[in-house]
Amino acid sequence: MDSKRKISLTGIKPTHVPHIGNYFGAIRPALRLTESYDGMYFIADYHALTTVRDPKALQQAVYDVTATWLACGLDPKSTIVYRQSSVPEVFELAWVLSCVVATGQLERGHAYKDAVAKGDVPNAGVFYYPVLMAADILLYGAQVVPIGQDQKQHLELARDMAQRLNHHYGEGTVVVPEALITEAPLVPGFDGHKMSKSRGNGITVFAPAKELRKGVMKFVTGSESLEEPKDPEGATVFQLYKLVATNEEIETLASKLRAGGYGWGHAKQDLYEALERELGPFRERFDALRADEAALDRTLEEGAERARAIARRTVARVRAAVGIDRPA
Amino acid sequence: MDSKRKISLTGIKPTHVPHIGNYFGAIRPALRLTESYDGMYFIADYHALTTVRDPKALQQAVYDVTATWLACGLDPKSTIVYRQSSVPEVFELAWVLSCVVATGQLERGHAYKDAVAKGDVPNAGVFYYPVLMAADILLYGAQVVPIGQDQKQHLELARDMAQRLNHHYGEGTVVVPEALITEAPLVPGFDGHKMSKSRGNGITVFAPAKELRKGVMKFVTGSESLEEPKDPEGATVFQLYKLVATNEEIETLASKLRAGGYGWGHAKQDLYEALERELGPFRERFDALRADEAALDRTLEEGAERARAIARRTVARVRAAVGIDRPA
Repeated sequence: MDSKRKISLTGIKPTHVPHIGNYFGAIRPALRLTESYDGMYFIADYHALTTVRDPKALQQAVYDVTATWLACGLDPKSTIVYRQSSVPEVFELAWVLSCVVATGQLERGHAYKDAVAKGDVPNAGVFYYPVLMAADILLYGAQVVPIGQDQKQHLELARDMAQRLNHHYGEGTVVVPEALITEAPLVPGFDGHKMSKSRGNGITVFAPAKELRKGVMKFVTGSESLEEPKDPEGATVFQLYKLVATNEEIETLASKLRAGGYGWGHAKQDLYEALERELGPFRERFDALRADEAALDRTLEEGAERARAIARRTVARVRAAVGIDRPA
Repeated sequence: MDSKRKISLTGIKPTHVPHIGNYFGAIRPALRLTESYDGMYFIADYHALTTVRDPKALQQAVYDVTATWLACGLDPKSTIVYRQSSVPEVFELAWVLSCVVATGQLERGHAYKDAVAKGDVPNAGVFYYPVLMAADILLYGAQVVPIGQDQKQHLELARDMAQRLNHHYGEGTVVVPEALITEAPLVPGFDGHKMSKSRGNGITVFAPAKELRKGVMKFVTGSESLEEPKDPEGATVFQLYKLVATNEEIETLASKLRAGGYGWGHAKQDLYEALERELGPFRERFDALRADEAALDRTLEEGAERARAIARRTVARVRAAVGIDRPA
């Protein structure tokens, strides 16, 4: 990693096989950050424990998402890619942070509040999650954390914990991170609603070409006849097309639709081809990567070694600052 | 340690120099457990972070309590004595437990509720404390946890988390601990109220003989004249005497007081002498132990090595059970 660049940290929750909504909404934007930042990417396996109760499913999901990200271009040489659980120091730092954050601040955490509002009985992991997220960040001195709007509050909490720690125990105890609000594009599913695992309205990133095409054909469209002119804007198919086609292609499709004589079925075929062009090459890489779990383990372990070296320095500094260890 | 005996676990919070209330109420009863159990004793330095903000004070308190317990007879060869912070695996286990306990259960935790009732703004460490306490216990497979009435609820929570973990991930994932309710004697301070650091009505265990005597002379008594007969029962001085004198001595003092012609000052002198007989020899050992922090560090580190070996086995078993690691 280039030490003159800032470190950006991205957590990847291994809860399901990524769909193309995850690809356009999270994976592709996150990978573009490596152009400007030294990237750290971790598979948040321990975080997934707040919702996943099936050990085998958790293990499979870790391999699924790791292979997906690597296939899509995450480079484990120029970035640090690791399992959260390979650096258990994060829980030690989380404890220290929990002693400087008020319980009330966590009660106002939106993930927890949302769970309560939905009538769930959230486990203490859900409640404590903003502390763990803060520790994930502060452990590596990440200066930049790319987040969506929905994570703004949690990042504010992480900044607050960092500032309190520095206030109590000296400036420089930990790095106060900055949010990098990333405007994730809204990726619609078949039914026009945001593509999501729980709605079951998506297509997995590495669905075989045939399945991908079948998925694209399921998208809802207007009921205009072939001949009628069509308004591309607002059409789910066109929305997705804009994420994957070149500007020229986008204009071409828009003109054809507006002119009439070009059906939604044609537009879907264009969309399928553009998706296949973008994802097809990744799919082959994915299949090869996913087939070799031992190699994935090695890649993650190599990243973990580098991550642990950073984490240990932070934890040593924090332990001395709070009085657990003598200052070196 | 004798592997046929059950393991009992005792946490020692390093927040102040122990007073004789701590000695009779906690230290002496806890040390007597080694007659029946394999004892593990840990200095809960990370737990103290919920209240202690002064790094130097925390370090000093760790040495103070360690030297105190060792001086009073805690044997680091036949037991395992260690710093909580030397086994950070405890925080990893705590995270797993937090994912099986409902937030509401922690909201009902009495330490947290008491803090809220007092108008405090409890930090998340106070809220999360029952989870950490559970991890402290389950990490070592302790079968028996000596507790006072005031810890009953927290131990129930620990049992509940253990049972849930075993329910979700298989029996035997962790050992479900049993409470051993210890009837700690009430030790009165100068003013007749329970001796406590916060009331400032105590005498430190290893106060020099002169100071110990001065402390004893400060105890409140009745205002009877020397000649008058006195009722020993209910007298603070007599209450303390009963904790430290032989049965014969107790009867003798009671008779003298009842007969009259024996003043409260005489009773205090008797109490002082009995305390000095019990604590005097410990004081010398304490002074020698406390003067050598490096030796205390070595003792604690030797204990930590043995504790970590047990902890790592537990964490490895739990990681495999929940799906973080492949089963071995």
